Amino acid sequence: GKTVGVLDADIWGFSIPRMLGMPDRLEAQKVDGRDKPMIIPNERKVGNGVLKVVSTGMLVEDEGTALMWRGLMLTKAVEQFLNDVQWGHLDYLVIDMPPGTGDVQMGLARMLPRTDLLIVTTPAVSAQKVAIRAADMARRSFLRVAGVIENMSSFECDHGESYALFGTGGGQALADEIGVELLGQVPIEPTVAAGGDAGEPVVLAGIGKAAEVFSRIATRIIEDTPDNSDMAGCSARDEDAGVGVTVRRSPDLQA
Amino acid sequence: GKTVGVLDADIWGFSIPRMLGMPDRLEAQKVDGRDKPMIIPNERKVGNGVLKVVSTGMLVEDEGTALMWRGLMLTKAVEQFLNDVQWGHLDYLVIDMPPGTGDVQMGLARMLPRTDLLIVTTPAVSAQKVAIRAADMARRSFLRVAGVIENMSSFECDHGESYALFGTGGGQALADEIGVELLGQVPIEPTVAAGGDAGEPVVLAGIGKAAEVFSRIATRIIEDTPDNSDMAGCSARDEDAGVGVTVRRSPDLQA
Repeated sequence: GKTVGVLDADIWGFSIPRMLGMPDRLEAQKVDGRDKPMIIPNERKVGNGVLKVVSTGMLVEDEGTALMWRGLMLTKAVEQFLNDVQWGHLDYLVIDMPPGTGDVQMGLARMLPRTDLLIVTTPAVSAQKVAIRAADMARRSFLRVAGVIENMSSFECDHGESYALFGTGGGQALADEIGVELLGQVPIEPTVAAGGDAGEPVVLAGIGKAAEVFSRIATRIIEDTPDNSDMAGCSARDEDAGVGVTVRRSPDLQA
Repeated sequence: GKTVGVLDADIWGFSIPRMLGMPDRLEAQKVDGRDKPMIIPNERKVGNGVLKVVSTGMLVEDEGTALMWRGLMLTKAVEQFLNDVQWGHLDYLVIDMPPGTGDVQMGLARMLPRTDLLIVTTPAVSAQKVAIRAADMARRSFLRVAGVIENMSSFECDHGESYALFGTGGGQALADEIGVELLGQVPIEPTVAAGGDAGEPVVLAGIGKAAEVFSRIATRIIEDTPDNSDMAGCSARDEDAGVGVTVRRSPDLQA
């Protein structure tokens, strides 16, 4: 029965509205004690819990609109997501960050100095080398890295054979290098992408091994996070690669 | 026997030095008629052709260094890559762009108004929706979109069965929606990621179906591009997803 805020801070690459099946535009409302109207998050019930979701995708005219925002505007947008949204009480706030270590990440690190980062990588060495830059940024910004998640770890065909399609060992190597734990290895499953496209994440349907791994990771994160640390859950992803197989799912993980 | 410049404009997510096996730091040299020293690209022979490569990864101390650059600095970096590099004669300049439609993309669109964009997507609908924003940006910036490449199209297991791991139809849908051609569908092959990690791209080794598709796409692009349009080849990628399976490979495509 947790209340989880989901902030899609991937301004250019937003896809959470589609993945969570929540395409509605956001409304703004006058709120007591504030001059400016506040943005009301879209809500979705998940079991006994509630997701409150805000995404750039819910603010623009249609999904295809290019968002030609630049550095300062990005930081402003993120600020607005935090200050002008009527979040209410939240047990966790999960933030989906764009890849890299740019304006959005730095703005958030400054505005939410006590957040935990989850770094997502693929098994490939090249992805891991990119992801480590996010860890480096976290260190410089004094953010805690809660762990590493390896995405697109392997694929098992119907004949029972397992294929390391994107290499092996990247997640563990990254975790070792930055001295944190590898929280889980998410297998590649066609249902994961399909569920994301349809707005019905596999972890909610509870189908397959990927869903299991997602749930296990969620449990770990909840156990590791002190009860009184409101708005402490924050996820960063980096080169997560497979759209539909990513920590973009973490909202559900924690519901 | 073409001379192809490769500009890795993915400032935060650079991985071209590793993928092309060219980790050396760049040197700067005094050049006649210029006050400032010029950056000399790293070179690699490919058949009768030459690759001249410049990447942020060749400018920083080590691969793990986070590049905490912001909007204006990014645009400046890209400007420097174009103006302060001793490119010499080039038949093509291939630019690997970061995902999204941010500062780097807009800076390049302004500085190189006659470039062609290649948009890379995965078969997933959600990826395609992100990629279309790049097309939208191109249209607003009056850049030509040369075509769409679908990456991570499908995987064939050793038993001959084909799996659409990340959905189907995204590439064709995107191409249709923006009125350009789908130039190719790159299958998922473990050798592609492995080749990228080892600095030996599969297309150079000529192994497998992915290599064939890469070559075919390259031929198409060369045929479509007028001979006298120096520095006309420019690639943008967006949500390319699989590191190691991307248009980051396009340098080789055109060699």
